[in-house]
Amino acid sequence: MPAYKAPMADFQFLLKDWLKIDEHYQAIGASDYDSELVLEILNQGAKFAEDIVAPLNREGDEEGCTLENGSVKTPEGFAKAYQDYVENGWNAMLGNPDFGGQDLPYSAAVPVHEMLNSANLSWRLTTMLTESAVLAVNKHATQELKEQYLPQLISGEWTGTMNLTEPHAGTDLALLSTKAEPQADGSYSITGNKIFITGGDQDWSSNIIHLVLARLPDAPKGVKGISLFLVPKFLLDENGQPGEANAVSVGSIEKKMGIKASPTCVMNYDGAKGWLVGEPNQGLACMFTMMNDARFQVGLQGLGVAEASYQGALIYARERLQSRAPQGVQQPDDKADAIIHQPDVRRMLLTQKAFAEGCRAMSLLYAKYMDIEKFATGDEHQHAANVLQYLTPICKSFMTDMGLEVASNGVQIFGGHGYVREWGMEQLMRDVKIAQLYEGTNGIQAGDLIGRKLTRSGGVMMRDTHKALTALTDVMTDDSARISAQDLLAEWLELSEQIMTFSPEDVAGAATDYLFYTSYVVLGVLWYSMADVAVDTDNAALAAGKVKTRDFYIKRLLPRKDMHKSAIVNGADDLLAVDDREFDYL
Amino acid sequence: MPAYKAPMADFQFLLKDWLKIDEHYQAIGASDYDSELVLEILNQGAKFAEDIVAPLNREGDEEGCTLENGSVKTPEGFAKAYQDYVENGWNAMLGNPDFGGQDLPYSAAVPVHEMLNSANLSWRLTTMLTESAVLAVNKHATQELKEQYLPQLISGEWTGTMNLTEPHAGTDLALLSTKAEPQADGSYSITGNKIFITGGDQDWSSNIIHLVLARLPDAPKGVKGISLFLVPKFLLDENGQPGEANAVSVGSIEKKMGIKASPTCVMNYDGAKGWLVGEPNQGLACMFTMMNDARFQVGLQGLGVAEASYQGALIYARERLQSRAPQGVQQPDDKADAIIHQPDVRRMLLTQKAFAEGCRAMSLLYAKYMDIEKFATGDEHQHAANVLQYLTPICKSFMTDMGLEVASNGVQIFGGHGYVREWGMEQLMRDVKIAQLYEGTNGIQAGDLIGRKLTRSGGVMMRDTHKALTALTDVMTDDSARISAQDLLAEWLELSEQIMTFSPEDVAGAATDYLFYTSYVVLGVLWYSMADVAVDTDNAALAAGKVKTRDFYIKRLLPRKDMHKSAIVNGADDLLAVDDREFDYL
Repeated sequence: MPAYKAPMADFQFLLKDWLKIDEHYQAIGASDYDSELVLEILNQGAKFAEDIVAPLNREGDEEGCTLENGSVKTPEGFAKAYQDYVENGWNAMLGNPDFGGQDLPYSAAVPVHEMLNSANLSWRLTTMLTESAVLAVNKHATQELKEQYLPQLISGEWTGTMNLTEPHAGTDLALLSTKAEPQADGSYSITGNKIFITGGDQDWSSNIIHLVLARLPDAPKGVKGISLFLVPKFLLDENGQPGEANAVSVGSIEKKMGIKASPTCVMNYDGAKGWLVGEPNQGLACMFTMMNDARFQVGLQGLGVAEASYQGALIYARERLQSRAPQGVQQPDDKADAIIHQPDVRRMLLTQKAFAEGCRAMSLLYAKYMDIEKFATGDEHQHAANVLQYLTPICKSFMTDMGLEVASNGVQIFGGHGYVREWGMEQLMRDVKIAQLYEGTNGIQAGDLIGRKLTRSGGVMMRDTHKALTALTDVMTDDSARISAQDLLAEWLELSEQIMTFSPEDVAGAATDYLFYTSYVVLGVLWYSMADVAVDTDNAALAAGKVKTRDFYIKRLLPRKDMHKSAIVNGADDLLAVDDREFDYL
Repeated sequence: MPAYKAPMADFQFLLKDWLKIDEHYQAIGASDYDSELVLEILNQGAKFAEDIVAPLNREGDEEGCTLENGSVKTPEGFAKAYQDYVENGWNAMLGNPDFGGQDLPYSAAVPVHEMLNSANLSWRLTTMLTESAVLAVNKHATQELKEQYLPQLISGEWTGTMNLTEPHAGTDLALLSTKAEPQADGSYSITGNKIFITGGDQDWSSNIIHLVLARLPDAPKGVKGISLFLVPKFLLDENGQPGEANAVSVGSIEKKMGIKASPTCVMNYDGAKGWLVGEPNQGLACMFTMMNDARFQVGLQGLGVAEASYQGALIYARERLQSRAPQGVQQPDDKADAIIHQPDVRRMLLTQKAFAEGCRAMSLLYAKYMDIEKFATGDEHQHAANVLQYLTPICKSFMTDMGLEVASNGVQIFGGHGYVREWGMEQLMRDVKIAQLYEGTNGIQAGDLIGRKLTRSGGVMMRDTHKALTALTDVMTDDSARISAQDLLAEWLELSEQIMTFSPEDVAGAATDYLFYTSYVVLGVLWYSMADVAVDTDNAALAAGKVKTRDFYIKRLLPRKDMHKSAIVNGADDLLAVDDREFDYL
């Protein structure tokens, strides 16, 4: 696997020229920040990702995690890289400054997260979940709990986990059965089994803070009877330091397709001591605090892997000499031409590029709206919140589906060598597959988009997103491209309004197609907008690359939207008509 | 992973009712065979696949192959299953009866091959390559070589391998450098290194017969200077039994993404003794004898995996209770409804079903034309050969691409559990990925279709395929469906003729899109035809299932053809316009 290089030129273009973050920080009252500072942070992040984390990726996959005497051992070098990460303050980028956080804008942190995902997805996961835990504790915990746990979670001295899934309660949290019994001292005794707990144990940190969904004794049935609890691996002593072991243990670790260097644990809570976070029976609402962020972060995993696969494939395609190009000999002094000259290889590379750079633009637009939501108030805050609500399932699903497609193309470009583990290309496929599954499968995301976000909000979130994208097209200087982009937006608006008149089953049947349809439209608008801005930059290769990749996207990838549209408008009868015995004929 | 069950009802329908093999065998003068005999063979094949081979699949993946003292050890039970296979005559199904073969029609053998691929792809591969070696030796070797090697290769006492690829010569065999020096005794001394040799060594058989591409000393450069040699692992003694070890050894075995139970070997030939097969410098032509067959067999691997994934996902979707269906409560006595009632899960299941059953129909239509090519003479023989030439890259690429899509859907239906190895769903994804890569990547297949098969044959193969598909639609009883199917064929014919006027670079740029476009059209015609025949059968569930799956395919999957068409007609300028430095901006 060729070495990973952070795509700094693209980050710089997108942040400075395309999103104009200098004006953006001024507008939202975050004037401590400017593009110079942010790009310097990104340069440092790039060095960390390239030099410290990326070199551990391939060997980490081979070595994997082991469970020895109840403790997880992660691959060689992983813990040391984590110490570096903590010492250099990367864990604290987004944290509340009252507890030691740096309170950076998301637009500064998200590129770093992308780089970490490209460099080593397994390694990144534990830090990502700590960030989610910080969000929940920061927003919902008592001041006492915050003071006890937040400084160490923000610094990274301790890590955090999210405990939702049980063997028979995954998508349907109403079925979860872990119990929480109130104790005389105000704590709770937590008993139950959780599965798929990323970083449930590791050898990186002196404590692990589990956030656990459980039911109080008198709780209503279903999702309205779920509460959130904070359960540390080691109870804190009188000095606030990890002391006595809590009654929580790792039952086993999963053998998985990929992310093998990330421990996925079965967690057993046997009367473990925990503390309520948020109000009783409001656990799901507390989890939703983290949901947008975690789902977006999973989308970033798809993007990170896509970028890594594109880089690997591009280098290989430039070096691998096989056959002559059909448009004529390209390298007369060599025995054959590099395969990058084959039109079909270029088709795959440009597919990778169009999705990687397009999804990067999507992620940074999302980050910009997270900045607005974080720093701004009033109408602007609500507008940003609506845009984020709508875009979250799109980022999660589309960016991970494209991550798999791009990684699969990367293997194809390597031919048979792509299937051999030492090159690292197949690992990217195996690793990214998880991102389509966790934090809600992509089918669940599609249901969230078309249900909660489109129809049940009465179209408000969709229309705010339409407004946000229209703002991008309004400033375009190329008239014909602007009209094309606005036609796309108009078609999407009309189809969205039409769906709001559908029956519940037609809505459910259209979910995935609507998510894809919308995603291809959004990416089309982003490509029109990026190319329009790029032509005015000093980087001639970037300007030409953006324009030509836009053309490729519009011609070869955007037409996918139409097949999704035709599926949407034809209703769900075809899905519901099939009787059980007609699925097979045994 | 739920147990594999051969889809016998579908085989019976397709062979007996749809392809009418009784009439077919009469027509081609293969009147020893009828549907009763063939279905009995399939029943026995199903038992072997279900009871002997399938149970080894999951553990084989975990155990993998090892190289110990230069010898490959395959997983526990694999060698024993192979003995059963040989003893029960499965290896000899298609072999020449002069050397102990059963000379069965392909339409009897292909369903058995599909079952073996579903049951255990790794296990199947070595037997598949033996069949390829048999074809080459049978057609091109001297009578003496045939007498020495064919009986044991056909029975399976010995296995065969194909040695094409070298580290720097994969797609481009012109670059291969393995040498063959003539010896005084009429043999040749073979020296060179080959990679990616499936079954290069194993612990199943008493000898292994390698077919090796190499260059004679005076050979012309490029592909016109390649010859084919037979190189046994053990030289035969005076009794024709394996004796002295030949100078061929296994350098290493690859660590791969999947098919871990199949040994993929680096082979070192150090002056190994070999014998010429076919004429000097005609090695590539000899290889092409096997190419159609091997590429079709790889397509069958995609189909086999698709079927296995569909079966696993269907069972899980019927059992897994999560949430309520949007169209109303389905299982009031349970805590939740089975996920098969979720429209989006049905969308995934029906996608799997439409591709698995559609590709099965494609494979059996192909088998029918292989029967015609094998048994018939004159015009009919040539017509069949043309249809097979055209359909080969389609079967290879489309069935394997759909295999991956279906297997990925299977993992999605299992949610997070699909990512855990013990369920076996992720293994199917890993295993099937190889089928997009070997025997020529799917990009190479696309180039073969649009180049050699469409444009360079002057459209003859395409028009013969058009005729073959039109024969299916001509007998349809539903007028409106027939018109729809014939409209599809007309559109495809017109687009194909249009492509024949393209420049070489536009042809190359359209290759993959043309392969997909054609495949979706062909599958559409097959679905129209199958549903039309199914309504007249006694199996009511099958009849309804076929009609409803046709409707689903036409509505949700066939529209994909249009995006490919729009890419084709717009030329390759977008692919060629990008300068090297515009791919990245470093």
